[in-house]
Amino acid sequence: MKEKQIGITVKKEDDSSEWYTQVIQRADLIEYTKVSGCYVLKPNAYAIWEIIQKYFDAKIKKSGVKNAYFPLLIPESLLKKESKHIEGFSPEVAWVTHAGDSKLDERLAIRPTSETIMYDSYSKWIRSHKDLPLRLNQWCNVVRWEFKNPVPFLRSREFLWQEGHTAFATKKEADEEAREILKYYKQVLEELLAVPMIEGIKSEKEKFAGADYTLSIETFLPTGKAIQGATSHGLGQNFSKVFNISFLDEENKKQYVWQNSWGLTTRTIGVMIMMHSDNKGLVLPPRVALNKVVIVPIIFENTKEKVLKVCDEIKKELSKHNPILDDRDDYSAGWKFSDWELKGIPIRIELGPKDLENKEVILVRRDTHEKIKVKIKDLSKKIDEILEEIQANLFNKAKKFLDSSIVEVDSISKLKDAVKNKKMGYAPWCGSRECEETIKAKADGAKSLNIPFNQKDPKKRCFACEGKAKYYAYFAKSY
Amino acid sequence: MKEKQIGITVKKEDDSSEWYTQVIQRADLIEYTKVSGCYVLKPNAYAIWEIIQKYFDAKIKKSGVKNAYFPLLIPESLLKKESKHIEGFSPEVAWVTHAGDSKLDERLAIRPTSETIMYDSYSKWIRSHKDLPLRLNQWCNVVRWEFKNPVPFLRSREFLWQEGHTAFATKKEADEEAREILKYYKQVLEELLAVPMIEGIKSEKEKFAGADYTLSIETFLPTGKAIQGATSHGLGQNFSKVFNISFLDEENKKQYVWQNSWGLTTRTIGVMIMMHSDNKGLVLPPRVALNKVVIVPIIFENTKEKVLKVCDEIKKELSKHNPILDDRDDYSAGWKFSDWELKGIPIRIELGPKDLENKEVILVRRDTHEKIKVKIKDLSKKIDEILEEIQANLFNKAKKFLDSSIVEVDSISKLKDAVKNKKMGYAPWCGSRECEETIKAKADGAKSLNIPFNQKDPKKRCFACEGKAKYYAYFAKSY
Repeated sequence: MKEKQIGITVKKEDDSSEWYTQVIQRADLIEYTKVSGCYVLKPNAYAIWEIIQKYFDAKIKKSGVKNAYFPLLIPESLLKKESKHIEGFSPEVAWVTHAGDSKLDERLAIRPTSETIMYDSYSKWIRSHKDLPLRLNQWCNVVRWEFKNPVPFLRSREFLWQEGHTAFATKKEADEEAREILKYYKQVLEELLAVPMIEGIKSEKEKFAGADYTLSIETFLPTGKAIQGATSHGLGQNFSKVFNISFLDEENKKQYVWQNSWGLTTRTIGVMIMMHSDNKGLVLPPRVALNKVVIVPIIFENTKEKVLKVCDEIKKELSKHNPILDDRDDYSAGWKFSDWELKGIPIRIELGPKDLENKEVILVRRDTHEKIKVKIKDLSKKIDEILEEIQANLFNKAKKFLDSSIVEVDSISKLKDAVKNKKMGYAPWCGSRECEETIKAKADGAKSLNIPFNQKDPKKRCFACEGKAKYYAYFAKSY
Repeated sequence: MKEKQIGITVKKEDDSSEWYTQVIQRADLIEYTKVSGCYVLKPNAYAIWEIIQKYFDAKIKKSGVKNAYFPLLIPESLLKKESKHIEGFSPEVAWVTHAGDSKLDERLAIRPTSETIMYDSYSKWIRSHKDLPLRLNQWCNVVRWEFKNPVPFLRSREFLWQEGHTAFATKKEADEEAREILKYYKQVLEELLAVPMIEGIKSEKEKFAGADYTLSIETFLPTGKAIQGATSHGLGQNFSKVFNISFLDEENKKQYVWQNSWGLTTRTIGVMIMMHSDNKGLVLPPRVALNKVVIVPIIFENTKEKVLKVCDEIKKELSKHNPILDDRDDYSAGWKFSDWELKGIPIRIELGPKDLENKEVILVRRDTHEKIKVKIKDLSKKIDEILEEIQANLFNKAKKFLDSSIVEVDSISKLKDAVKNKKMGYAPWCGSRECEETIKAKADGAKSLNIPFNQKDPKKRCFACEGKAKYYAYFAKSY
């Protein structure tokens, strides 16, 4: 038998960074490449993305959004049209300057996001109120050449995402859609990935470059840092005025459209890994597990044939869960257990000759490691139940963790303490850009996550500057 | 009523280039951008691509291929590793030289194809014969900065495709897979897009840069030019030796893998348009039409309500065909007929008050313009039948055209005549690179398409150089 040790060698609680690196590699999710910050999404990772795509794509199509595809390369002059937008993105743009041996007349940006190239078309397509709403989405890759330390999924220089870009006749419709999309994002994170989210609005400092406002979903990870799940931006008329996206309304008067843009990225996969995975490796919520079950036969020479025959029958019976039958000859059952734990398969079925005599199997839950004896005749029903239980348990555990990580603070020093204790602060706040700069400087780099939709009345002073508080907001160190 | 003329203003047979430009724009498939050769795939075009993706993706997954995603950007040193490969692609590479304000240490190529970046990973992943076969695919964008005149879909500088990259222990397995994939490609073109194809092997001159051989499917368009549908390359051990992708076989001996790569692009959409569309606009084979039916009510004030009510019922009944009900008030029925003809909807249903009295509707086939009266009670069944008929008719018509375009020739001057008469030549040939250069120079730029799998014994001299003929091959001017 060729059995090299394959487990995770550091603990999540001791060195979360090294732990994460080991999990994503040993679960066969990521391969590093020669370009720093650019990673291979291996089949196990891409399968998760496909499940997310299918789920979200169905929701937006049902809502009336259509998919399209706009070019990767954006002329510099176009990218620069909206001044705040380019200010936000220009430090991270990858520039194409040559094609073959020829220097290009104008540099081309690899899209960091597609507002500018899409809205150049929108200005041609929208003439009348009858052309509205225009609601398009694309699934694509983008490049943002960040110089901070890259982390697979969480901060990579190229990533995959969907970007929706919509235009409406009225602010009201645009505002409603921004909320609607945020709801879908929350469902992706909570219902598929089992990661609880806080919905809210970003601060002035943290909103999208060129937006009137940004809605976000945020969560808090066991590493003591917060992370953004997805964002939905109300762009107001900022881009429509610059790109001249206007229409004649029912009274034949020229109006500028109200726009939104919204995006969900492969980062969500990293959030899920960070939240649920443990010291044995990846933990996959059943709804995003391509293979929900692995069957490991316990093999002895004289009973091998009988055991494998029943394993095969079980595999067929459970086919809707896409089970793997691990009948590899040259690994021990114990090695296989570790291997599939590393890869996060939600349920393991063990079947040996003794189990067979008793007409039962042993189920092992990946989330709790609980072992459950089940009669073979009850297996299919039981698997359905346990998969639901695992999905719910992962979410509930994460929700409890998120709730327990929130500390109400009334001063910067208390926020600093909270951050030190791997908590997030919740505080009455004035919301100003200057105040947020001060907070960041004095509280170890903590920044606002968002201002939650569900508010209690902040009849208090701002925890940081003692000015009038407008609302409560969340603060934490974040990815 | 605001009714500007919207039809195609030139004839396919008079000026196919202008005709094509009008069709793709007026059918809302393509928008031009500020970057020459880069186009927007509008929702109508992207919907076709999604149907192609779904169909092909299911086939390869069933065959055991897994999807993954590799980075967009390839370091120059990696791209240059296989000398013939880089020789083929370097004139067309778009180079990233800067990120933000910083010059990169090494230029990065936007992938023109991903052999080099993928095989760098494959060399890490493949160690043992048990790691084989490795069969991965990705759906992505690529950039090839061609300096020839760009044409939307057919020759664009960025396009969408899938690229499969596989590694096998033996040449036999690799050869079999290359053929298997070509079969799937043929099915995409023939069964979905209704475009008949000739399967064969590319000449030495026309094969993929770095391949041992290239299999292709080819067709011939009414414009008098041939076009390639898709290719499946046998890479042999060319890349595995350069990238050191080796494994220990069952006797523990080091072997290099045998590789294939294969791709299908958005070009296929252009092939379909060129083949089927007519002087009224786009003609969509039903299987790639997102909306297979459009219902146009004939509206008079006093019967409007009744007619619309029945149209609505019909829409519900035909829901599996995703019908459009065009109840726009400010366009005449005639204008709507032209509009939906432009957009290629396979079947139009007309329903006016008189039809309603007779409990019938008029169906109009987009392919033949035939009008068919159908009782409303028989509608659903009839639509199913006619959609099948349209699909078959488009294929058969195109097949007849393809067959009638083939002329057997026995000299270069006869090939030149054939090309002049908008035909393709079929000729006994020696297959040499030099001979093909001569043919191209003397026969108005005609080149070999492929050497078909179905061969008759060429006991003849080469039609061009009088050397010994090895096989029959097809020659034509091509896109």
